[in-house]
Amino acid sequence: MIMEVQDSVCGALEAVDGAGKFKEDAWTRPGGGGGISRVLQDGDVFEKAGVNISVVYGVMPPEAYRAAKANVTDQKPSPVPFFAAGISSVLHPKNPFAPTLHFNYRYFETDAPKDAPGAPRQWWFGGGTDLTPTYIFEEDVKHFHSIQKKACDKFDPSFYPRFKKWCDDYFYIKHRDERRGLGGIFFDDLNDNDQEMLLSFATECANSVVPAYVPIVEKRKNTPFTESHKAWQQLRRGRYIEFNLVYDRGTTFGLKTGGRIESILVSLPLTARWEY
Amino acid sequence: MIMEVQDSVCGALEAVDGAGKFKEDAWTRPGGGGGISRVLQDGDVFEKAGVNISVVYGVMPPEAYRAAKANVTDQKPSPVPFFAAGISSVLHPKNPFAPTLHFNYRYFETDAPKDAPGAPRQWWFGGGTDLTPTYIFEEDVKHFHSIQKKACDKFDPSFYPRFKKWCDDYFYIKHRDERRGLGGIFFDDLNDNDQEMLLSFATECANSVVPAYVPIVEKRKNTPFTESHKAWQQLRRGRYIEFNLVYDRGTTFGLKTGGRIESILVSLPLTARWEY
Repeated sequence: MIMEVQDSVCGALEAVDGAGKFKEDAWTRPGGGGGISRVLQDGDVFEKAGVNISVVYGVMPPEAYRAAKANVTDQKPSPVPFFAAGISSVLHPKNPFAPTLHFNYRYFETDAPKDAPGAPRQWWFGGGTDLTPTYIFEEDVKHFHSIQKKACDKFDPSFYPRFKKWCDDYFYIKHRDERRGLGGIFFDDLNDNDQEMLLSFATECANSVVPAYVPIVEKRKNTPFTESHKAWQQLRRGRYIEFNLVYDRGTTFGLKTGGRIESILVSLPLTARWEY
Repeated sequence: MIMEVQDSVCGALEAVDGAGKFKEDAWTRPGGGGGISRVLQDGDVFEKAGVNISVVYGVMPPEAYRAAKANVTDQKPSPVPFFAAGISSVLHPKNPFAPTLHFNYRYFETDAPKDAPGAPRQWWFGGGTDLTPTYIFEEDVKHFHSIQKKACDKFDPSFYPRFKKWCDDYFYIKHRDERRGLGGIFFDDLNDNDQEMLLSFATECANSVVPAYVPIVEKRKNTPFTESHKAWQQLRRGRYIEFNLVYDRGTTFGLKTGGRIESILVSLPLTARWEY
């Protein structure tokens, strides 16, 4: 699933960009597993677009377990064997009127910690798709959310309202009391439906990325802009970096489990600015 | 002490810059106290230079206490009354051959937590001065360290080797297995000498900032550079941001105690770049 989505998203983005091509790196993780990173940098339309897949497994330290799980009620005291597979992507266009998009879908499994061999195995799905414009066009935001709703409604009418709220709550820059973007959907620790159903749901969400995002970029990629539009975009990108380095669970988890730095931080924009 | 150092450092930096002037903001913290931020932005020599002083007090949540203290052996379980006064500064020059400087000197006092009224009051000094060049000139680094050594040696011959090592250990970007810069001195939780002596020591260190740094900037501020030198500087600045947002205790403490965001994040460079 993740390899197919990586192919289809990268293909659609190259078509939008016209000039830029994705470069691929395959890497392996010393502790177990590996991944394929594809990055399109400095294209005609995209400043930096990264689409990574990874399948990693091994043993994670307790801090990493806390970073991986949203609500750790069961404080596993010792290293935890785990398996994780996912796709993760952040797309930063050059034009300040074209929004940044992030999506990520992942499956997680943990085994009993070594000092409690009888404890049950756990699994869950997590992920989401969300939009972060520098300038807001209501029609773009409506289009984006309508596609998310459609994907959710195919599975459960409660999904969209629940995961939309979750997204608003998660992408929140606490120290600034502001949201990172304009939301979308987000969920984590999802295991209250059967595994097959949730895999289909995550696949549907991932397949909705292209129809939700590409029409917006097509519409905005050639809009004329001034230096002051660009400067505002650079400040907004600073906020994006603050969220990712201070709060984002995927980033934190990656840094704590010794993931591949280049792949984890491909989410950061090419350039950003912090004015006093 | 902190007001005098702020005046003398800002005066020396304006003289180096020639064109840029510091702008001053005074702010108060809702929970108690306040500060004075001075920022010189987009001068002839400095891209962004911030010199902040603050005196804050109130009650801090347990997470903030953990961020404030280096080694929390005594897990204070509940909100802790505190008082903190300090000066903190990061100086980012434009020229890629002129290094970034950071210094920070602070005094901290905590009272017994509310649910353990008999517990002893604690106090400590912390701080340091360290240099982060984009390009390394051995003579500059030697000059810088020699001034730090001289300041330390006036008080205790064990200070310089001990605080130099502490600095190397602290400014370490764990996820990249690299140091942020070329070191200097750093100490925290210092309370094993008498308070007067440690205040004089911190004052001496703060007064050494100008002689340690200004000659280096004077020497490098007009060195010709190319676009590729500038691009390398921008990547190194990205690393600076990673350290500050992910690891730095001052930044983390500020964000957790609801400090003034503009003052806390004045340490970030004006612009930075992350290439894949």
